[in-house]
Amino acid sequence: MQRALNVTRADNFPEWYQAVVRDADMAENSPVRGCMVIKPWGYGVWELIQAELDRRIKATGHENCYFPLFVPLSFIAKEAEHVEGFAKEMAVVTHHRLKLIDGRLQPDPTAELEEPLIVRPTSETIIGDAFQRWIKSYRDLPLLINQWANVVRWEMRTRLFLRTSEFLWQEGHTAHADREDAMAETLRMLEVYRAFSEEVLAMPVVAGEKPENERFPGAENTFSIEAMMQDGKALQAGTSHYLGQNFAKAQNIRFQTDKEDLAFCHTTSWGVSTRMVGGVIMTHGDDDGLRLPPAIAPRQIVIVPMLRDKPEDVEVLAYCDALAADLLKGSAFGAPLRVLVDKKPIRSAEKRWNWVRRGAPLILEIGPRDAAGGQVTFMRRDQLRDGDRVRSQSEARDAFVQGAPRRLAEIQAALFAEAKARLADNIRTDIDTFEGLEAHFGAAVEDDEAGAAFKGWVRAGWSRPEGGELEGVVERLKALKLTLRNAPMDQGGGAARCIFTGRPAVEDILIARAY
Amino acid sequence: MQRALNVTRADNFPEWYQAVVRDADMAENSPVRGCMVIKPWGYGVWELIQAELDRRIKATGHENCYFPLFVPLSFIAKEAEHVEGFAKEMAVVTHHRLKLIDGRLQPDPTAELEEPLIVRPTSETIIGDAFQRWIKSYRDLPLLINQWANVVRWEMRTRLFLRTSEFLWQEGHTAHADREDAMAETLRMLEVYRAFSEEVLAMPVVAGEKPENERFPGAENTFSIEAMMQDGKALQAGTSHYLGQNFAKAQNIRFQTDKEDLAFCHTTSWGVSTRMVGGVIMTHGDDDGLRLPPAIAPRQIVIVPMLRDKPEDVEVLAYCDALAADLLKGSAFGAPLRVLVDKKPIRSAEKRWNWVRRGAPLILEIGPRDAAGGQVTFMRRDQLRDGDRVRSQSEARDAFVQGAPRRLAEIQAALFAEAKARLADNIRTDIDTFEGLEAHFGAAVEDDEAGAAFKGWVRAGWSRPEGGELEGVVERLKALKLTLRNAPMDQGGGAARCIFTGRPAVEDILIARAY
Repeated sequence: MQRALNVTRADNFPEWYQAVVRDADMAENSPVRGCMVIKPWGYGVWELIQAELDRRIKATGHENCYFPLFVPLSFIAKEAEHVEGFAKEMAVVTHHRLKLIDGRLQPDPTAELEEPLIVRPTSETIIGDAFQRWIKSYRDLPLLINQWANVVRWEMRTRLFLRTSEFLWQEGHTAHADREDAMAETLRMLEVYRAFSEEVLAMPVVAGEKPENERFPGAENTFSIEAMMQDGKALQAGTSHYLGQNFAKAQNIRFQTDKEDLAFCHTTSWGVSTRMVGGVIMTHGDDDGLRLPPAIAPRQIVIVPMLRDKPEDVEVLAYCDALAADLLKGSAFGAPLRVLVDKKPIRSAEKRWNWVRRGAPLILEIGPRDAAGGQVTFMRRDQLRDGDRVRSQSEARDAFVQGAPRRLAEIQAALFAEAKARLADNIRTDIDTFEGLEAHFGAAVEDDEAGAAFKGWVRAGWSRPEGGELEGVVERLKALKLTLRNAPMDQGGGAARCIFTGRPAVEDILIARAY
Repeated sequence: MQRALNVTRADNFPEWYQAVVRDADMAENSPVRGCMVIKPWGYGVWELIQAELDRRIKATGHENCYFPLFVPLSFIAKEAEHVEGFAKEMAVVTHHRLKLIDGRLQPDPTAELEEPLIVRPTSETIIGDAFQRWIKSYRDLPLLINQWANVVRWEMRTRLFLRTSEFLWQEGHTAHADREDAMAETLRMLEVYRAFSEEVLAMPVVAGEKPENERFPGAENTFSIEAMMQDGKALQAGTSHYLGQNFAKAQNIRFQTDKEDLAFCHTTSWGVSTRMVGGVIMTHGDDDGLRLPPAIAPRQIVIVPMLRDKPEDVEVLAYCDALAADLLKGSAFGAPLRVLVDKKPIRSAEKRWNWVRRGAPLILEIGPRDAAGGQVTFMRRDQLRDGDRVRSQSEARDAFVQGAPRRLAEIQAALFAEAKARLADNIRTDIDTFEGLEAHFGAAVEDDEAGAAFKGWVRAGWSRPEGGELEGVVERLKALKLTLRNAPMDQGGGAARCIFTGRPAVEDILIARAY
């Protein structure tokens, strides 16, 4: 069977992923190591993610700010002191001028910074510094701030959207009077992420708490949403941290209580990034390319006029333009429909496959017969194939226009249902020994890049081992290329015993290979 | 008279500007030299600027992308070669890791980059590199790209919003098949900026072409919009460049023409930045603080409940909430009204003055009498004073709700009219000798920071001197702290002779002190 991509998911999942990113025109590698160029179609998806998530972040009382790109080295040093396991791969600015020396442009030795600046890997310290200035009294609390920004973490092995040295994200930072309020905020934002992922990205997730070894350095509790990719691996798609008073103490973020004494704030932070776009690709893509949930499709309906360099082309184009104008009056997901008539001077068949690969939810092919008969011929991208054949449907023009918002909602729901079933069907709960885990996941694959068979996740009993015992667990899992994902919030009726320690389980935990 | 700020424009304009930025809670200096923290109220203004300008940029056919924060040094070196007067104050990344050495966290000497990276001061080179890959044929043209990003230019003397080492902007980059198309694009975007400034920021501008000495390095033509601040100085608020084939040749951006031969593209670039926010402040602010055009006010209507810790507070609050709910149903400038009931636990009078300083267009003070009588008591920020007294009006609740969108439009128009009159009245066209210029602007003020008297601009004849002759003109002007701003697009009936050379004038040019 002819497919729109030259590699399938089953053949080689990582290569398939790269092919989708490339052929859907989402992003590409740049000449700057580890940094990507996000192309219009990929950036369009990100803009829609931003717009809707921003709306939800504001609806929960947060305000946007902008903080400096650079963090003084001393701020980082202070954090490094109080945080173990602190990552040090960062971009370091040491000079502020270039100079032509011996005919070569280079950093000017006379313009070395007294204190190097770090390109923010995250903004806890620079925002904490502002909080310490802004917060005086309990009346200033809670302080609920969000920032949309680029951040840089030097990465050796990168993959477009999933792991890049520079990426785009939002980072929420909040300060509260007490633990209860801060923890409520942490969980509120976790729930915002869960609902956003499922409702907007059509990407089902499991929300839960990370085990100690997977916590954000300096956090008391780290929560995450985990999504199942089509290779069975887990993708951490968002995190929310309760930081206790750790950062407040390191940065002297104090407030006068209503009893007139001074207390340290309790802070939180939470973020999602362009990584989400990678999650969308690996959740919904198929062997013909990307399939975009209509809520985040930059173009939900693409009209391809079937032109033949003949006189009737004029009528076909006029018919397409009028159709687009009518469709643009409709709305879906709380916003006007996004419709395009693709008039690019290339062959119609090429256009069709371009839009298939890009995952436009509804692709219309309008020829002279449609124009004459008042018809619309279209493909639903989520139901592209009937066996090997491409499935094309016809409908009366007005019925199509009127039904378009409903049909987009159906596509959104269908993509979610498909992914939800995959998630639900592929979490094994019947494995209760480490040997069982070993048997299920098989010995460590030498190169798991090239498509280890689909194994899904295991949900098993967990006794919350700590310290050395936890390290032992992590090591044993590592040999199987497995990691602890999270202990789901939804804990009804879990396993009796811990799969690792044999002691009574306190909760269930998810175990999976992961990105 | 009691004012909401402790310094007036007449006393000391630069100090007044700083006071507005601080007291309107727009932004503050950060611990990182030259970088600002943009606070929620300031960032809210920027978000509204972004949203509406982005809409206009997309409506003219551009698509957003995202390119790397870093530019390899070799790219910059290549540009430096072909561009004279190339600025070299940039942030240079030389290391990718920190390491604890002798108890001190510092750049790891073993993690020095082979090639230093520059934090983008602008993205011509990195985007040009992508264009050179993306453009193959005339079918790919025009390529119309925009990017919203942070950029860094190391600055020694900084001023919040006006000149900061890091700032936020949008940069458009386009490629075209010929000069005509590229020039049309350059002027189209200049007009987008002009219309946006006047219609949305209520900031009148003069659009025109920069003289040779003020051109963007490497550009064939640079156009700008120039706004008149309340101290009479000019602020360049946006630029649009026709780059000819200069960048295309330096970066090998070629395409196959419809005649099958290879040709270099003609490119353009254009941008506006957070500097615009500074322009808004200096255009509309008064001695009580900021006055925001309603189109970019994060809150257009602020309701201050006059609470007295008495039982009737409950009714007042309920009345305010119901009023806000009704107002929120309305819309202005194509978007729902932005309304806030300020329930912060501080004194009502303090709230009033906070919102006056922040420039909320309509400030309501609702007490028990209003609630009981179905009234609204409000201030129009643009008409705050009647002589020395604060002017407060009352209106029946329903009439106020219904009239709110119209009233906001009136305020927008009034602010524009006021600024437009100031601009129109303060461009002298009757000065036709350099001696006249000297007499008008006076000898160079030693420290023009501390409020040189308002002088406005001069519009005079211009013969387009070049090379050494132009340098001479620039030097003579410099002694008067003056600069050439632009030759206005609108050139009807200009001066006969050049004010500098005495030769017949080709056009008029604007001369002014400037930011």
